[in-house]
Amino acid sequence: MSIAIIVTDRDTSLLKQKTEEQLSGLSQVWVYPDIPEPEAVEMAVVWKHPPGILETFPRLKLVSSLGAGVEQILAGPPLPPEVAVTRIVEEALTTSMRNFALMAVLNIQKQFRFYQRNQREMQWIRPEPVEIPLRIGLLGLGELGGSIARALAGLGFEVWGYSRGGRRLEGVRCLHSGELSAAEFARNVNLLICLLPHTPATEGILNLELFRSLPQGSYLINLGRGAHLDEEGLLAAIREGHIREAWLDVFREEPLPPSHPFWLYDSIVVTPHIASITKQENAAQIIAENYRRMKAGRPLLFEVKREKGY
Amino acid sequence: MSIAIIVTDRDTSLLKQKTEEQLSGLSQVWVYPDIPEPEAVEMAVVWKHPPGILETFPRLKLVSSLGAGVEQILAGPPLPPEVAVTRIVEEALTTSMRNFALMAVLNIQKQFRFYQRNQREMQWIRPEPVEIPLRIGLLGLGELGGSIARALAGLGFEVWGYSRGGRRLEGVRCLHSGELSAAEFARNVNLLICLLPHTPATEGILNLELFRSLPQGSYLINLGRGAHLDEEGLLAAIREGHIREAWLDVFREEPLPPSHPFWLYDSIVVTPHIASITKQENAAQIIAENYRRMKAGRPLLFEVKREKGY
Repeated sequence: MSIAIIVTDRDTSLLKQKTEEQLSGLSQVWVYPDIPEPEAVEMAVVWKHPPGILETFPRLKLVSSLGAGVEQILAGPPLPPEVAVTRIVEEALTTSMRNFALMAVLNIQKQFRFYQRNQREMQWIRPEPVEIPLRIGLLGLGELGGSIARALAGLGFEVWGYSRGGRRLEGVRCLHSGELSAAEFARNVNLLICLLPHTPATEGILNLELFRSLPQGSYLINLGRGAHLDEEGLLAAIREGHIREAWLDVFREEPLPPSHPFWLYDSIVVTPHIASITKQENAAQIIAENYRRMKAGRPLLFEVKREKGY
Repeated sequence: MSIAIIVTDRDTSLLKQKTEEQLSGLSQVWVYPDIPEPEAVEMAVVWKHPPGILETFPRLKLVSSLGAGVEQILAGPPLPPEVAVTRIVEEALTTSMRNFALMAVLNIQKQFRFYQRNQREMQWIRPEPVEIPLRIGLLGLGELGGSIARALAGLGFEVWGYSRGGRRLEGVRCLHSGELSAAEFARNVNLLICLLPHTPATEGILNLELFRSLPQGSYLINLGRGAHLDEEGLLAAIREGHIREAWLDVFREEPLPPSHPFWLYDSIVVTPHIASITKQENAAQIIAENYRRMKAGRPLLFEVKREKGY
């Protein structure tokens, strides 16, 4: 019986090697497109996988995303109900996402890009105020959003959290999506960080209506998915002055096409989907552990509730 | 009896007002150059003060720096031994310095400036590795350096500390300047953050010998004083490749003159001495408290040991 790694955006030789080491002969590990016996595949590890490929595995019991998001698995042709879906939440991914969010928030607070522009013109300018006063709202308080909210609160920032689960975190003013809309939540803050899962309910949630509920001159950091953002809504909010600066690490089309207007806006910061990284060594441990659990019929790590979408 | 505020680089009307409020009539507060009776001045609050001005106050008992550094007070004509010297260490200053250091470290780890350059050329490039592995050395573990070391260790960074006091901090590998040189200390790390006080012993401590003890491609963040840095040594270390990127917030001459070569180096980040800010409301509380303590003959807050220089 075999594991198939179907990942199209990076080299996974380390993942294959480490998963094999972890399982020491218990299972073969094949890397797409080199899958000699599709009928032997019991577990698939996927990221940006070709649509329909999972249907070619008649004995499939478990699909693991290589990242924290599973929307691409759930968006494909419906899987048989007995196939479990898991994702990978590992410390390096959480830490690197948290560090990216802290970096973006501190760059905004300290106005770092202002000084970089001034340096290019040899201008020594101390702005007033030196620090932008921030009230930060986290959309999403899962593993990633929760870690960011805690770190920001620990640094003394005013932090608000908005989630469907109604999670409570010390030092964070947590509000529940059942009780108020995202736009009502956003009235409390002047910086929004999106770390929601991508589901039909969150698609396009970062839209002009939401931005208009922020005070003039607010900030946006999108670390969720490109599909959370209504791109035209963002450009309108920048024109209206509601958004002063948007930091975007994820896009509807990746790589962001050279013709896309986002590249050219000084008020938009583009990074090439690097906010978080999954360490292949760590991922291999979780994959191997879930393979063993699946074989033994034990509860899986990070199993997704397919009806909720995350 | 009076307090004289002698600060030449910013408006201090808020400081005057808040100090007066704190003291509610106990003392007048004059702002340089409007000091009607020099013989009535018992306390001076100074920053970038004109040399020799303290000698014009025959009844001077206390000089407070408006910041954390006192080197300008101690570098002037020797004060009579009965004059005490204090400095201001307040939470906003510590927090803002800590946040600047975190911002710089995270920008380096995440290679933010690389993406900013790429955005200008509409280039989507994910580097390998995505994160620079950092081992961070703090030169100076006082109020400011200690706060930064703790915060970085709390985020999971490998942090080393080097101090004269031999201070110990949890999660930080603390070494003592009596036991090894700064260059020996620097062998352990690939990023140096300077938060030393400025004394004759630390003048020019950031020099080519120190930089050569770092591995190729290391990083420097100077948040201490411009006088800590040997400027030619830095340029040589950049040419040799020992320093890949230097973040400088303080300079020997401020504002940094437009003709200075630092402006033009892509591997040097210039910020206009904004890493930390002293909140005038908070400073007024400490000034008023020390005025009352001086009048009552009680121990002063943040008194400087003049022979140590900090």
